[in-house]
Order: sequence, then structure tokens, then C-alpha cells
Amino acid sequence: MTRRFVLDPFGDKYAHRTSSMLSSEIRDLLAVTARRDIISLAGGLPYTQAMDPGVILGLVEEVLREDHAAALQYGPTDGYAPLKRSLVEVMREEGIPCLPEDIIITNGAQQGLEIISKIFINPGDDIVTEAPSYVGALNSFLSYQPRIHTIPIDGEGMLLDPLEKTLRRLSGRGRQVKFIYTVPNFHNPAGVTMSTERRYGLLQLAETFDCLVVEDNPYGLLRFEGEPSPALRTLDENRVIYLGTLSKIFSAGMRIGWVAAPHPILEKLLLAKQSADLCTSSFTQRVAHLYFSRHDWRGQIGQLVEIYRERRNVMLEAMEEFLSGIASWTRPQGGLFLWVTLPEFIRTSDMLASAIDAKVAYVPGRGFFPYEGGENSMRLNFSYPEPELVWEGIKRLSKVVKREVALAKSLGLGPKTNGYPGTEE
Amino acid sequence: MTRRFVLDPFGDKYAHRTSSMLSSEIRDLLAVTARRDIISLAGGLPYTQAMDPGVILGLVEEVLREDHAAALQYGPTDGYAPLKRSLVEVMREEGIPCLPEDIIITNGAQQGLEIISKIFINPGDDIVTEAPSYVGALNSFLSYQPRIHTIPIDGEGMLLDPLEKTLRRLSGRGRQVKFIYTVPNFHNPAGVTMSTERRYGLLQLAETFDCLVVEDNPYGLLRFEGEPSPALRTLDENRVIYLGTLSKIFSAGMRIGWVAAPHPILEKLLLAKQSADLCTSSFTQRVAHLYFSRHDWRGQIGQLVEIYRERRNVMLEAMEEFLSGIASWTRPQGGLFLWVTLPEFIRTSDMLASAIDAKVAYVPGRGFFPYEGGENSMRLNFSYPEPELVWEGIKRLSKVVKREVALAKSLGLGPKTNGYPGTEE
Repeated sequence: MTRRFVLDPFGDKYAHRTSSMLSSEIRDLLAVTARRDIISLAGGLPYTQAMDPGVILGLVEEVLREDHAAALQYGPTDGYAPLKRSLVEVMREEGIPCLPEDIIITNGAQQGLEIISKIFINPGDDIVTEAPSYVGALNSFLSYQPRIHTIPIDGEGMLLDPLEKTLRRLSGRGRQVKFIYTVPNFHNPAGVTMSTERRYGLLQLAETFDCLVVEDNPYGLLRFEGEPSPALRTLDENRVIYLGTLSKIFSAGMRIGWVAAPHPILEKLLLAKQSADLCTSSFTQRVAHLYFSRHDWRGQIGQLVEIYRERRNVMLEAMEEFLSGIASWTRPQGGLFLWVTLPEFIRTSDMLASAIDAKVAYVPGRGFFPYEGGENSMRLNFSYPEPELVWEGIKRLSKVVKREVALAKSLGLGPKTNGYPGTEE
Repeated sequence: MTRRFVLDPFGDKYAHRTSSMLSSEIRDLLAVTARRDIISLAGGLPYTQAMDPGVILGLVEEVLREDHAAALQYGPTDGYAPLKRSLVEVMREEGIPCLPEDIIITNGAQQGLEIISKIFINPGDDIVTEAPSYVGALNSFLSYQPRIHTIPIDGEGMLLDPLEKTLRRLSGRGRQVKFIYTVPNFHNPAGVTMSTERRYGLLQLAETFDCLVVEDNPYGLLRFEGEPSPALRTLDENRVIYLGTLSKIFSAGMRIGWVAAPHPILEKLLLAKQSADLCTSSFTQRVAHLYFSRHDWRGQIGQLVEIYRERRNVMLEAMEEFLSGIASWTRPQGGLFLWVTLPEFIRTSDMLASAIDAKVAYVPGRGFFPYEGGENSMRLNFSYPEPELVWEGIKRLSKVVKREVALAKSLGLGPKTNGYPGTEE
């Protein structure tokens, strides 16, 4: 693949956007996805139907038998110690070194993002994210009013040259970047995975310019094919704040995530966690611990991988069938999402109403950029809808897109795009 | 009772204290309370042993049978709608008007305090709290760097004259108080309850000086005797942000609380909740909903009230038996705590090590004041330890105190105090 990138023209612009802009968009969408007649490719939902309720009930029974008073009681702010040991096992599955004492348990990785934002970001501080980036991370960051500098990505993740230019420029002005935020595996929303070479390069730049890296890894174990690259934490434990979650491999409804960080940072995060909510649910932590110590969780992940791989395949086939030559899209090796780029004249935020009329929903790309960008792109989810609905959803979507294209053609415009946000062929 | 109060001399001092000072104190204490040989009167723990684990298991079974996929899935940020309706019933039990749409469900009331702090407090902003006040609230507040103005309390709650003076002084300087924070029922840590007269007076002042009131009511349903006063929310829905929790009447380990607020505020809180952790556990919310719609929760609260009343009685008797004439203390009509004031020369922070040597633990008063105060006081918990341990704990504590007093007498000092923080007979 030939790559030429353009620097995000808005990367250096400090336009404080309230998080309400993102949130109301997402909230309106979520409201829509609840309607039964609409095929939602919008959510970021795991397929929780795949979990056997009998397994959960058995674990709850054991939790209550062992010590119901403790399960119903407040617990330590840093988390239930036996669960920390289970989380270390989960990380080991990806070859990531960690000790239980490196971990604070949080309410999903989202709470990790919030407390990281709280302890690091003062108004006007500089941070770096990919563009596009996870909307929940952007919401937490923006609520503390940083300047977000965005780096475009391609099929191998964050582009290093614009990253280096941004870091060099800021450093030249005496500004200290607080952290670089990345989702290296099966990116949300772009679906791409950072190559091993880029990982080394990113950490090299982080060292040169002495900034921390926040590695958000919710999907790492949901790999359909290909060889995994080492986690950033594996390559540099002292510079990386690692975020994990059980939401995609066990249950989102249990609200369990974790942060693994160097101890001086962990101490500050612990204080923020204490103010935030005292502790994560003792009840769900105990259930999760038993799940990962008693149940064949690896087998369950294998089953999820089968389910999601099939749905991704169906989505890719449907894209090829219905949108070839009009749109371009990423080909994720795992995770939950596909990123679709449409001709430049299409505004996916504007098109959403037509899509919902056609009974299909997606997330417009705009929401994944802190200030500007992504107007002609969208995120599609393949983990939640059944395969037939994935196919039918793309079919419906294609009709909406083709109508927009036909309209544009009548005005003398034509499609042109490569599928990676912020880059051009 | 004759009352003469002194204005808290530190109420107007802006000395930013990091929340770490409070937290490490509490964390060290919690570490101690885990030791079996120590009688802990330190924690703020409900007696979760009183809950029948079979009841919980039955509810979980029903939750999983009804819709296990939804229980394991992400849920709406504002909370599970049927649970909101149950919480309205819980509030109705105290005569507090509320609609489901006035509520956001949070991870315990602590998360409510955090998101209130986040949306209201900018560095240097003015807020008002009681002195002493709930340490978790102070931690959340202080992490956003306000100036906290503290108002002393007596047996009828916050004193209105110093409150008025503070509000008038700030108003005279053109400063807008963001909110007044209060725990009106069975105060944590002081154990006192705000009289009806004071409630009207407080709201009158809030109206005059146009500030919001944050009403934190975790213990309202745990009344042992006496007639309840109306909740502040009952008296003025538009000026009061109300915090409720299931931690003291159902389970702290489920992490379920709520905020009821005027809708413009609720909208902002919702955005903060979304950034904070997307949603509260769908699993525990569904279990809680079934508990409050299927189970005799009023009967269960009645049982807790019996248990706690007995323990409070034992604690009061033991105080009379062992510390009469040396200490003074509050006589709570409900809740979890007794506030003890020792002679002025005793520093309860310093004395804690001796107490732990004597195998009894308490929380030193200092932690409940944002900047200074409470040095000769302590909070005692009677809800968690069995009655015999309450008695024995006070006995052990009295020996430690008497040793301090004897030492002081040999230096020519003597006890003098009235039991209410910040006031003198």
C-alpha cells in the first residue's frame, strides 16, 4: 500500500468543545437502536447472548455461600485482591507482564480514562490522540479542557512522522505533552491494528520527548487471524499506563476494568478512584473472580471470536457486494468495528436521518474527532447484530449511500477516498 | 441546653489540602480494622450479615431468567428505568416527592458527590459544608480545589447564625456560593439530626443568597426513635440536589446510589456520569430493582433498625459507664455514628496508635474538617460490631483515654467540653 498522509489541520487548534456535543449525538443514536425495526450497526455492544446464564448463576451461588456479607459490603478502593490475580492471568494471555500490586480495579476502562484525565489534565494542557479516537476517551479528556493534538492513522496505526512533528513542535515551544493516548489493537472506531514497528517507534518518540503513553486495550483477546504484536506495556512498563476491561470478554454489565501503571501514578489514581466512588462493586468483582478462576474463560473467548469473525466476514462480503467502488473500508483482524469512508461530498451526520428512515443505524465519523474531521466517515459494528442482520443492514445502508451519490453525480461530483481517516492515496 | 457557638476560625481560610491527607489516614485505619484481634469502631460499614443470601440468590436467578443478555450488557447512562421507579418508592417512604425522570443512578452516593463537584466547582469557588462533615464528600470537593467555608453544628444541626454571616460576607464581596452541603439526618460523623426549624431556616437563607443545597441522606430510613423532619427536597425541590443510596438499606457492595435534581442540573450530571463510567452495573441494578419490587424491604429495614438501636444503646451505656465526666458525646436517634469530644488537650490522631495497641480503633475527628479542627474528637461506629464488642471496645477505649487524662492532670490540665464540634457551653 502506498501511503501519503496529511497532517490533521485542526491538530493544533484549541477550540474547547463541551462533551455534550458528542454525548447527545450518541444518546440520540442509542435511543434509536432500541427500536426493534432498526438494524443497529451503531452500538459498541458485545454479544452477551453468548454467555450461559447457568454459569453465572452457579458463580453467584458460590460467591454468596463463601461470604455473602463481604460480597454485599464495601471493599478496598484498589479492588478485590483475588480478582487482581485473575486479571494478571488475563493479561498474561496476551503476554503482558503485570503484578497484582500494579493494578487498580475500575468500573470498566471508562473509569480508568476518567481518573487518568482527572489526575493529569489541567485546562490548556497538551495531550495527543489518534484521529479518529474512542469517543468515550475524548469525552473524558475534553471535560478537563486540554488541547488535544490529533495524529492520523492508516492500516498500521498511528503515523509516526506527524507524531514526531507534533511532539517536536510542542517541545520547541517548551510545552510538555502529558500523554499519548492509543488503542493499538482493533482500534475503536477504525478497526486497524498498530504494527510492531510502529509500536517500537511510538515508544521511542515517547522516550525522546519524555511523555507517557496511555494504552487502551479492550479488544486484544478478540483476534480472528494474524499474529499479535507485543503490547506497549510489554515493551516499556515504566512509560505506559495500561487499561484493560472485562466488558468485551466477560460482561459489560458487571462494569469491571482496570488500570496498570507505574506506582507513583497508581497512588494518585487510587485517590481519584476513592473520591470517584469509594470502590467497585464487591459483588460483581467476586463473580468475575470466580469466572476467571473456575470457568473455561479461554474457551468462551474462543467462542466469541468464532461468532465475531463470522459477522465481520459477512460485513466485509456485504460491503464488497453493495458498496464496492463507492466506499472504502478497513479490514479488522479482530475487535468489533469497521471504519467506512465515503466520498467527500457525503456528510454522514446529515445522512443519518435518511439511514434511520431506511431502518439502519451507524455512528457518524464526526464524533470520533475532538474538534473537526470524519465528516464523510462512519463506524460500523459487527459484534452485536446476527449475521443476517449484518448483511441486510449493509444492503439498506448501501441504498441510502447510493441515493446520495446519485444526487451528487447529478451535480457533477464523484467518489474518491482510500478508507483511512486523514490520509490520501 | 444553653448554646454559645464560635465561628469556625478556619472557615474562611483557603489552604488547599490534597485529598491524600484524608485518604491515607482512612486507608491506614481500614488496614487495621481487618485485623481480627482489633475491635473496630472506625468503619462506616452496614451490618451486611443481616441479609439472607438465599433472598439475593433467588433474585439473581430471576434476573438471569428474565433477560441474562441485558443484565450482562451495557445499560443507559441515567440508569435502569424500572429501578428508578423503585427508588421513587424508597423516597416516598420518607415522604420525599420524586419522579423517575428526576433521577440519575450512580455508583453509590459517592459518585453523586464526585459528579456534583465536577460540574460545579472550579478552583477557588466557594462552597459551604458543616464542620465536621463527611470525609468522602470533602475528598471529592477538595479534589476540585474550592474554598470550603465551614459552619459549626450542634444537637439540632447546622447553626444558622454563622451560616448567615458567612453567606452575607461572601455575598458582600460579590462571591457566589455554589452550594451548601449537608447531611441532615443522623449526620456522618456527628450523629445529630437537623431540626425542622433549622431546615426551613437553611432553605430561607439559601433562597436569600440564591445558592443550591446538596442534601445527602444515606441514613434517613434508619431511625430508632423520634419523629422525622421533612427532607429539604420535600420543602424546596428546585433548590435542592438530593443524594440517596442503597448502601445502608440493601447492599453497599452493589454500589447503587442516585441523584435527584432539577432537570437543567441533571442534564449536566448525566454528561459527567457518562464520562465517569458510561453506566452503573446493569447486573446489580436489576438485582436491586427486584429486591425493592419483590422483597419485604421495609421489614428488612425494620430488622436493621432493631439491630442498630440495640448497638447504639449499648454504646451509649458503655460511654456512660466508662467515660462519663471525661468525654461528651452525641445521642443519635438513628444512623451509624456517635461523635465523641474529649478534653482539649487530647489529640485523637496522636492517641490512635495507643488505641490500636489496646486493640480498639476509631476515626480521629481531624479527618472530618477540610482544613483544621476536630483534633480532640473522634467518630465511633456502632452499626457493624456486635453488641458485646461495642461494650468491650468502649471499655478498651476508656482505658486509653484515662491514661491520657491522668498524664495531663499530672501536668495541671483538666477536661472541659460539651460534645458538639465548634460550640461551647
